[in-house]
Amino acid sequence: MPGTVYVDPLHRVAVAGGTHGNEMSGVFLVKHWLKHSSQLERDTVSAVPLLSNPKASEKGVRYYEKDLNRCFTLDILSAPDSPDDPYEVLRAKEINRLLGPRGSANAYDMILDLHNTTSNMGVCLIVSRVHNAVEMHACQYIQTHLPHYNPRIYVYAKPGTDLYSVDSVAKCGLGFELGPQPQGVVRADILQKMKTVIEMTLDFINHLNKGMEFPAFETDTYQCSGQVDFPRSSDGEISAVIHPSLQDKDFSLLHPGDLIFLTLDGQSIPYSGEKPIYPVFINEAAYYEKKIAFILAEKIRVSVPALRRQTH
Amino acid sequence: MPGTVYVDPLHRVAVAGGTHGNEMSGVFLVKHWLKHSSQLERDTVSAVPLLSNPKASEKGVRYYEKDLNRCFTLDILSAPDSPDDPYEVLRAKEINRLLGPRGSANAYDMILDLHNTTSNMGVCLIVSRVHNAVEMHACQYIQTHLPHYNPRIYVYAKPGTDLYSVDSVAKCGLGFELGPQPQGVVRADILQKMKTVIEMTLDFINHLNKGMEFPAFETDTYQCSGQVDFPRSSDGEISAVIHPSLQDKDFSLLHPGDLIFLTLDGQSIPYSGEKPIYPVFINEAAYYEKKIAFILAEKIRVSVPALRRQTH
Repeated sequence: MPGTVYVDPLHRVAVAGGTHGNEMSGVFLVKHWLKHSSQLERDTVSAVPLLSNPKASEKGVRYYEKDLNRCFTLDILSAPDSPDDPYEVLRAKEINRLLGPRGSANAYDMILDLHNTTSNMGVCLIVSRVHNAVEMHACQYIQTHLPHYNPRIYVYAKPGTDLYSVDSVAKCGLGFELGPQPQGVVRADILQKMKTVIEMTLDFINHLNKGMEFPAFETDTYQCSGQVDFPRSSDGEISAVIHPSLQDKDFSLLHPGDLIFLTLDGQSIPYSGEKPIYPVFINEAAYYEKKIAFILAEKIRVSVPALRRQTH
Repeated sequence: MPGTVYVDPLHRVAVAGGTHGNEMSGVFLVKHWLKHSSQLERDTVSAVPLLSNPKASEKGVRYYEKDLNRCFTLDILSAPDSPDDPYEVLRAKEINRLLGPRGSANAYDMILDLHNTTSNMGVCLIVSRVHNAVEMHACQYIQTHLPHYNPRIYVYAKPGTDLYSVDSVAKCGLGFELGPQPQGVVRADILQKMKTVIEMTLDFINHLNKGMEFPAFETDTYQCSGQVDFPRSSDGEISAVIHPSLQDKDFSLLHPGDLIFLTLDGQSIPYSGEKPIYPVFINEAAYYEKKIAFILAEKIRVSVPALRRQTH
């Protein structure tokens, strides 16, 4: 177990919603906070609301030309502008100028990015990796203070791959993936949970900035290890759907032989993996075009060192 | 109670899916039936599967330029072609040539049109009006044979208004509105229910064609009587969402004073109508742009005469 990590206070914080324009909790909350910005203020930090993808939010679609939340790679951000750039590439570069540049000393201290999923993910906290103590302590703070939400930590980036999400522009980033909620719909229950977890995260930042020490801890994380496509016929069309016994069972252990797909003629298809694994993002609407029926995650326990503000 | 209605047998029947391209049960079923058309065959009828809006289904959106299921008015269908016609107007005219023309002797005998909703509508059977004995007996047959689905009959057209839905092209039409299901998602449970109700409807047509007599009956219908928009601030933005106590309560009696909306600051807004009413299509994603938070329906009991095939 390493010793205490000391960090500079976090003063420049952004709350992004509408990164996907049909994930309505974030769109709705950010529009609300743009009018009532004092609700994002704490003693030591005033978070800035950002409507990440105005054009997609206006149209009520995930994206206008390209998935914005895959556009923040170093390759895309550093490429010269081109008249053929999709809207979202231009917008990613703009956000990178506003809140970054990514990887620089000038970058924002933290971006909180708000998402919804049609999957039964509950309150899911997303980090890119497990090495950032601020991000991990923010998750722990939320888990400790909102145990009835049963928040889980999902780690999206595989080792050796570049990051691509909007929150990677800042020094620290946290995604909030709340579901189930249909695209294009605001549900009051999900909205209230999202508002509460963001308020809780700002409280955490405020405590950190004021000098509170956060002790070391261990926690379970769910780390992306693969993905499963739908069965398809020779023409590429989906030939079987998520099995009723898998539907809505995100974060429930899946064993080899458990049923995962069902054809229209009633044939059940079992999971053929070699070991038990945790399925997540089961039947997420936006992943059909990405050829993902669900994502596989391994449950990995990690140790996080104590955290405290740097005192110069 | 009127006497028996005698009708010609129904031989030309179409099953339409993808009228809205992101309502996936119908898209999925029609694509399946296009490959396995024998599943739509009965002794006396072979129903034809039709992907109503191929372009919207391909893109996974409700519509490409205009809501197809509002394009089948006599005004639109009879207007001369124009180079400015939206894709869906052209497609409506094409479907009208294929399965109509609407109101003519050449028109198809029946169109069954498959829809999904994000609202908790369960298995909802939609007729335009209550005067068509074939449509009403089809509903009764489904209700009698699938009581565990608790199918309800919704009447969409107000008196004196023109029809606009795809099934109005045929002599008889029936819409199937199954939910809750997010846009862009296929859920196995909803898919199985939709497949079963369509199979049941084809059985009904087959029995009718073969001479079975269907006795007169009375049934409850839910008839559209109005709609309620979300509360909005002066800039037109939605300022309150569906109240948790109303969410998912489609077809449950709403009383004056019951809470219907909730603001982000926790203020509850009651229903200010003068009499109890049945809310339906509560929080349907596609109705946000139509400025509909939910639809109001009156429960009206109707008498339906006996039905039998014409014997010449």
